[in-house]
Amino acid sequence: MFRDMSTRTKYLLEESQMPKAWYNLQADLPVPLPPVLHPGTMQPVGPDDLAPLFPMSLIQQEVTTEREIDIPEPVQDIYKLWRPAPLYRAHRLEKVLGTPAKIFYKYEGVSPAGSHKPNTAIPQAFYNQQAGVKRLTTETGAGQWGTSLSFAGNLFGLEVLVFQVRVSYDQKPYRRAVMETYGARCVASPSMETVYGRSVLAEHPNHPGSLGIAISEAVELAAQRDDTKYALGSVLNHVLLHQTVIGLEAMEQMQMADAWPDVVVGCTGGGSNFAGIAFPFIGHGLRGGQKSRIVAVEPAACPSLTRGKYAYDFGDTGHMTPLSKMHTLGSTFTPPGFHAGGLRYHGMAPLVSHAKELGLMEAVAYTQGECFAAGVTFARAEGIVPAPESNHAVKGAIEEALRCKREGKSENILFCLSGHGHFDMVSYQKYFAGELTDESYNEQELAMALASLPSVPAQG
Amino acid sequence: MFRDMSTRTKYLLEESQMPKAWYNLQADLPVPLPPVLHPGTMQPVGPDDLAPLFPMSLIQQEVTTEREIDIPEPVQDIYKLWRPAPLYRAHRLEKVLGTPAKIFYKYEGVSPAGSHKPNTAIPQAFYNQQAGVKRLTTETGAGQWGTSLSFAGNLFGLEVLVFQVRVSYDQKPYRRAVMETYGARCVASPSMETVYGRSVLAEHPNHPGSLGIAISEAVELAAQRDDTKYALGSVLNHVLLHQTVIGLEAMEQMQMADAWPDVVVGCTGGGSNFAGIAFPFIGHGLRGGQKSRIVAVEPAACPSLTRGKYAYDFGDTGHMTPLSKMHTLGSTFTPPGFHAGGLRYHGMAPLVSHAKELGLMEAVAYTQGECFAAGVTFARAEGIVPAPESNHAVKGAIEEALRCKREGKSENILFCLSGHGHFDMVSYQKYFAGELTDESYNEQELAMALASLPSVPAQG
Repeated sequence: MFRDMSTRTKYLLEESQMPKAWYNLQADLPVPLPPVLHPGTMQPVGPDDLAPLFPMSLIQQEVTTEREIDIPEPVQDIYKLWRPAPLYRAHRLEKVLGTPAKIFYKYEGVSPAGSHKPNTAIPQAFYNQQAGVKRLTTETGAGQWGTSLSFAGNLFGLEVLVFQVRVSYDQKPYRRAVMETYGARCVASPSMETVYGRSVLAEHPNHPGSLGIAISEAVELAAQRDDTKYALGSVLNHVLLHQTVIGLEAMEQMQMADAWPDVVVGCTGGGSNFAGIAFPFIGHGLRGGQKSRIVAVEPAACPSLTRGKYAYDFGDTGHMTPLSKMHTLGSTFTPPGFHAGGLRYHGMAPLVSHAKELGLMEAVAYTQGECFAAGVTFARAEGIVPAPESNHAVKGAIEEALRCKREGKSENILFCLSGHGHFDMVSYQKYFAGELTDESYNEQELAMALASLPSVPAQG
Repeated sequence: MFRDMSTRTKYLLEESQMPKAWYNLQADLPVPLPPVLHPGTMQPVGPDDLAPLFPMSLIQQEVTTEREIDIPEPVQDIYKLWRPAPLYRAHRLEKVLGTPAKIFYKYEGVSPAGSHKPNTAIPQAFYNQQAGVKRLTTETGAGQWGTSLSFAGNLFGLEVLVFQVRVSYDQKPYRRAVMETYGARCVASPSMETVYGRSVLAEHPNHPGSLGIAISEAVELAAQRDDTKYALGSVLNHVLLHQTVIGLEAMEQMQMADAWPDVVVGCTGGGSNFAGIAFPFIGHGLRGGQKSRIVAVEPAACPSLTRGKYAYDFGDTGHMTPLSKMHTLGSTFTPPGFHAGGLRYHGMAPLVSHAKELGLMEAVAYTQGECFAAGVTFARAEGIVPAPESNHAVKGAIEEALRCKREGKSENILFCLSGHGHFDMVSYQKYFAGELTDESYNEQELAMALASLPSVPAQG
């Protein structure tokens, strides 16, 4: 029972082996990313268009094609509170599955916030502080991102205002308590604090809120004040860039294990932890190195990559953001309520969408019931209870391992376990009580949302 | 703001530097521990008396005076899932406090269960499995111990049955969800599954339960069946022994930091995480090494070390356990409801109590309001949100640091941060809402509980 535990299960790096630079996939793309467009002029946005929302250093990271972006020393110092993160060989899970495959996972739940989100919250807070910003606004659904930005803002002396989707605000008061512990202010969205929030409430006084509405509120406030900027936890190029510390560390660790991945798996909502684990491997392949299959796993109830349209769309419901070309279910699409709140977003990161269009990766969708079952199998084998979002990556990795079993192949499978589920045990409780339904989206609503995508002239 | 972050903040050990043996304080005690007594005969219990409850290997660890007990390899292998645990220098907390002291903390929240409890759950499950046991029973209050034994039992293929104090069972269903995720069965105590539980319910159908009652139920079931044993998460010598991996690692890490602790601080409920961090340092001093001051911090609402009597008492409410000499508030004492559920126990580990009587350590009590305030200060400075129990150690360390400030002393303070608070954010929420009351125990009830301690003939 234990002899296989005596082979190595944990691969740790020294702090001195931590990446000193993030990896930028834009440097290696065979076709450049389509530009972001101004919704009024339909022309590519310039840095000045984004300046009300972000400090110039982050805007530059959004568009640069430099391959390596130095990680500032103060950011490296704070990363060291929990990084380098461990990489595990899942010996026991392999045994349970009876697979000849070797399964490895990179564990990002060791951060103080319990997920990968601080990897970008810290540099975003840093660059904003450097630019003299005093206050950050953001949105959060389940609460992982709001928690992480609260943590980061506090470390850099920034005020943080979080618009939390009302239904989560009401149902998960303990998430708000974490944000308040870090000194942030958290309000339910739609709120009376913004013009857009008030307009929504005027029409629907009991509106449960959505991520798209909360983004509109946070953007509105940031645009109004010079000392206030906006921070987004996924989707944007600079956010994905910051998350590449995950994959860069994992590359070193897979080399330690002498097991280059045949397949790399991550879960996708906005795309940030997925890009974090996957982009360094995609880039390695694009530069002539050993190629890995790259698999994104998304929820069947919000399947932007597998059922969405690759088209220009708004990032928010209030249509205050620029237009980005991405896989989208339509900015008016409301996904059904399911427990991986971090994956409930109508769009996909433009860089991930572009990589998908270029054939650099695959995507697959699973229901939440299938994903919770996979998460329980994983927890019983490996000890760590995954976040509901991370269960999608677990499910994807297990499916790859079972394919290897059918095909008799001893492949190396690497996946990102983006966070622990200690904040989300209510959803496991419902799973065990048989109360989790695999509610699908409304096909008609999806068709309508896709039909109302903004009309954009063909780009050059 | 960040320059002090560039000095080292995290001290990590290699897996090869992990302790290969636990440290047994009984080897170095100037006066041996008073014997455990059979409540019927008032004679010292022998191994056979305990055999219905524990496997012989653990009973031997209960009484041995060998200094070093080898950690079995399968236990070391599983420890490596999260150990060695990091030791941090709290640079930012020092700065916030303006203290010349250096504050270090050993962080045990990195385990899959989020606390130090798996350090003993793993070896207890291992020794039981080795002895052919099929099923373990235990009790849990807030749920940390039940979670950890569920995790450990699952890894060793043992069935686990957890009696959870009913008020926690009802109020914290997500804790039960973690246990069920690990495949354990969790029932509310008092339950209909035991003679004792049924007798309590017959008298009080809506009894909210207590740790003492849950222990009685778990012990009753274990005593009935040969294939079933009982596991306790604190108090007993072998439990404290297993936790010494905390202090043994910390010793190595404090040497790396070139900062031997002047004072070592831990929180105490049953005494296990405290013993884990403190006993190796106490032993070092007893063997002629540099002495450290040792400070136990307990809740003012359940102050066994500072207000209890050092006397023989039962470990449970149903009086099924042997009698141990310890600091006790009386086995019939019911502490008021407060949020550090892991510290709500009427007694103190006999080894900790004995060390206190021998003058090897000090004890101090703080209210939960003071401790939550300390925990919030810590979270804002260091990023990690502590468990309510751990907040007591944080408070103790902060008080020592402020003393150093008053006295102008640059002492080295080490404390054990026994777990994260991600499961306990409801209590932080109440703290921020001003709803936490510092309810004290009833003085008259304490006097009555102390007056009804069992009468034991003088030993020796």
